[in-house]
Amino acid sequence: MKTVSRNRMIYTFSKKHKPVAFVQPGELVTIETEDAFGGQIRNENDSVQTLDWAKVDGATGPIYVEGAEPGDTLAVEIIDITVPNKGVIVTVPKQGILAEKSIEPSTRIVRISKSHADFLGTKLSINPMIGTIGVTPAESEIPCGSLGRHGGNMDVKEITSRSKLFFPVFAKGALFAAGDLHAVQADGELCVSAIEVPGEISVKFEIIKNKKPEWPVLETKDSYSLLACGETLDEAAKLATEAATNALMRQYRWPFETAYMFGSLAVDLKINQVVDPKKGVRAAISKKYVDLESFLT
Amino acid sequence: MKTVSRNRMIYTFSKKHKPVAFVQPGELVTIETEDAFGGQIRNENDSVQTLDWAKVDGATGPIYVEGAEPGDTLAVEIIDITVPNKGVIVTVPKQGILAEKSIEPSTRIVRISKSHADFLGTKLSINPMIGTIGVTPAESEIPCGSLGRHGGNMDVKEITSRSKLFFPVFAKGALFAAGDLHAVQADGELCVSAIEVPGEISVKFEIIKNKKPEWPVLETKDSYSLLACGETLDEAAKLATEAATNALMRQYRWPFETAYMFGSLAVDLKINQVVDPKKGVRAAISKKYVDLESFLT
Repeated sequence: MKTVSRNRMIYTFSKKHKPVAFVQPGELVTIETEDAFGGQIRNENDSVQTLDWAKVDGATGPIYVEGAEPGDTLAVEIIDITVPNKGVIVTVPKQGILAEKSIEPSTRIVRISKSHADFLGTKLSINPMIGTIGVTPAESEIPCGSLGRHGGNMDVKEITSRSKLFFPVFAKGALFAAGDLHAVQADGELCVSAIEVPGEISVKFEIIKNKKPEWPVLETKDSYSLLACGETLDEAAKLATEAATNALMRQYRWPFETAYMFGSLAVDLKINQVVDPKKGVRAAISKKYVDLESFLT
Repeated sequence: MKTVSRNRMIYTFSKKHKPVAFVQPGELVTIETEDAFGGQIRNENDSVQTLDWAKVDGATGPIYVEGAEPGDTLAVEIIDITVPNKGVIVTVPKQGILAEKSIEPSTRIVRISKSHADFLGTKLSINPMIGTIGVTPAESEIPCGSLGRHGGNMDVKEITSRSKLFFPVFAKGALFAAGDLHAVQADGELCVSAIEVPGEISVKFEIIKNKKPEWPVLETKDSYSLLACGETLDEAAKLATEAATNALMRQYRWPFETAYMFGSLAVDLKINQVVDPKKGVRAAISKKYVDLESFLT
């Protein structure tokens, strides 16, 4: 088993970063991650006002997956995510979906048990998930705190253990990275932070040769989701719908209108990201209605 | 038991319409509804191109609920929704979330059994729901095909039997109306129509005096949702978040920042409406974390 240390951080997805590990498809890889603040917040007196922002929103990597070439799909099976017994959540002036309100900086340390996080006496079921996960894009450089067709800071709460992701490969070796774990997060991550934790992710990679998805695809027990983004939620919703309609046309060999109709009945648009430079909407379809193959061209 | 005939249709929510029934709180009321096309589409040769659009997007009502006054809340318990054994779905040029694509008009008649709808051989579990439901607004007139703080064409797929809605009352008697039933619809109703059906809704009304919600509130088995809308999904998401944060501040007597944090962990933003003049986003909170009282002021 290979372990990638949390000392090997990047803050952009870019071909300029040298790989920190070379792994084989099928190999079990453990990735240590730092929290979204780079571990700078240790107690409730540590304010976001004094953060070194250059150390915020990092990811561990890049990891070179042997055999991955541009035009392929990188499949990432998330085997396990472990999180520690405490995390941190903050408010930051001018951040989050209500950014235009007057927001005081504040910090809360949250205790985490095996099953729950305790927020001021209210217990929330924990759901360890990966906020930032992706491959290196075709473009020169995208901050790890943003998102795109390469993945990135998508903040999808269903990116948990036993889920699987499929990314289009743009660079030789795919150059994968992940970080920004959350112990608990709701759809939208409204205030800009969730229960932020360091931790360990174990994954296995596979490569699907010579075909790729339009957007990252998330496979859960019951559904496939296309993870789209845009300048606005409305644009992201349109792009997610377009890709889902394309997949349905391939699945059933239907004309556009028939796939569009079926989308009205079987494609749920869901919000994931409202607090980043780009907004994220996913289009979820039950596995009853679509196969993975239909997302790959 | 009182029955309101589907011959009593309105096409706007407005104080100008005379009540078609007067009901008491607690009385069981059956409301017959026409489908969204006013029953004009009977087979697959009936095209949307020849529709009389004045008969589209109607609702049955208005129903005067005795004792409801502006400033109160009208609670609507949905006891049952019955739908027939066939429905219709259409595509319409320049309509739906992909309106800018070239869309051919097309019509499908869909068979509906007790459990499933059959779309070209693919079976979808039926989920009878109410697309349009609301009260008469303070403003002079809002088309039944649009939405607002009064409710309207919200297309929330969780507005089913055994759910409950809470509307702010703006007019004496509340002047309630409902229609636009769907046998199956996914979140977003992407192509502008779902499996459109006529049917019957049975409801009971209650009045909560002298307090009202900021937006219609939907109660399901597990959660409360604030049903907000705006010119864009982004605006709707903001308004839904703001109202949810206000409710959490009332529930826990927290300052804004604490409620904003908790929202990041416990408030899911969900898309319902992307194809109407206004876009709909709901903020869902588990009943574990909030009481109905916190939504009413």
